[in-house]
Amino acid sequence: MAQPTIIFYDIPSSLDPQPWSPNTWRTRYALNYKGLAYQTVWVEYPDIEEVCKKIGAAPTRTVAPLYTLPVIHDTSTGVVLSDGPAIAEYLDKQYPDTPNLFPSGTVALQYGFIAAHADAITSLFVFALPKTNSILNPRSEEYFRRTREQIYGKKMDELTPVGDARVAEWGKYRDGLGKIDGWIKKSGGPFVMGDTISFADVTIASFLVWLKIVFGEDSQEWKDIASWHDGRWDALIKAFAKYQH
Amino acid sequence: MAQPTIIFYDIPSSLDPQPWSPNTWRTRYALNYKGLAYQTVWVEYPDIEEVCKKIGAAPTRTVAPLYTLPVIHDTSTGVVLSDGPAIAEYLDKQYPDTPNLFPSGTVALQYGFIAAHADAITSLFVFALPKTNSILNPRSEEYFRRTREQIYGKKMDELTPVGDARVAEWGKYRDGLGKIDGWIKKSGGPFVMGDTISFADVTIASFLVWLKIVFGEDSQEWKDIASWHDGRWDALIKAFAKYQH
Repeated sequence: MAQPTIIFYDIPSSLDPQPWSPNTWRTRYALNYKGLAYQTVWVEYPDIEEVCKKIGAAPTRTVAPLYTLPVIHDTSTGVVLSDGPAIAEYLDKQYPDTPNLFPSGTVALQYGFIAAHADAITSLFVFALPKTNSILNPRSEEYFRRTREQIYGKKMDELTPVGDARVAEWGKYRDGLGKIDGWIKKSGGPFVMGDTISFADVTIASFLVWLKIVFGEDSQEWKDIASWHDGRWDALIKAFAKYQH
Repeated sequence: MAQPTIIFYDIPSSLDPQPWSPNTWRTRYALNYKGLAYQTVWVEYPDIEEVCKKIGAAPTRTVAPLYTLPVIHDTSTGVVLSDGPAIAEYLDKQYPDTPNLFPSGTVALQYGFIAAHADAITSLFVFALPKTNSILNPRSEEYFRRTREQIYGKKMDELTPVGDARVAEWGKYRDGLGKIDGWIKKSGGPFVMGDTISFADVTIASFLVWLKIVFGEDSQEWKDIASWHDGRWDALIKAFAKYQH
């Protein structure tokens, strides 16, 4: 493998290995799938804005600017880019000899699919955010807790519903994945486009691996997910294991 | 063109020509795009359930069964099928020599895209339903009014917001289309997959033509839509004009 020319900015954790974020997994999986050499730079949450401004990475939300990771800096071209899908599009164009994540003609369909995916899995966050909070390093933990409690108007340890409400909300997540399972079945699977991995799969896998990491593979939550939809999600994460580093 | 072997069940109106429904336009456009001969059977709303049961068409919602059009009866195969996307999938498979609406490998992506499209245009209904109600024949008008007033908990003539609320809601519809415009731009356009029409375009066009028909092309509403996003939507409906019969 060539010397790393891509610097990849990711958010650390107290785990070993450190990667956990579903957003940055989209870029990590993309880089590994393409076999591109890169070097990870770990940035704690409170430092993201300063780092982005310093290297010239655009905010991903422009009204009340919000700086987020993933960001890459491709030192061979000078390009600095934020936002997982945009980074994958860039890697496809800049490195056309690597496996394509947006097969010809599918880019708009992929964007629509990932919007539908995001809509289908919204119930997941009240489960995943407190677990995520617990695996962050102290400086990020304080930032993450404060900003998420602001968004949800709830204390972090009150975010996950309990009792019947928990069952109902977890069921909504299962049904959301069920909708996506129904679509994938139409293609024949195992991937969204059939035999070929595309950015839609990278997105699905990134949110699943997040859960597997923060809950742990022996958790009831992961066991549930692994049992749903004829084991589709467990199989997907296993198919992505070779890009999970 | 061969003798019609497909019977296509559509919902009539008081307009000339009669077709108006965005759901049945998806099948009408599909049949015309493929150049398949068919015969339209017009079914007023209160008769849909009885007709579907008689010909053996499945309800499209199974909990509290709801029978909807479009339905096709392909007399050459005996297949009776409901639901626009399912019908288009069937036509692709049964008539592989006609232009494909789900290009190879894209069926799951297409389903995701049309879910995202549906989510993006929800603001449209409070504008389009009262206009639609006004162009139906009396028996359908009564049925449509009663069922929609039940769903929205509002009188039909109070459904469309007024004043600032109207401007805000119409703006949400524009912004929803703007999201889709952003995705299509990535493909190069004019269609979702670039140069090739697919079921995603059929879906977008079906909802646009509904508006153009019920509001009229001289209405302020259609003029607005035609002016948005560099004229993309007006151009799309013009590109579909040859399938609009």
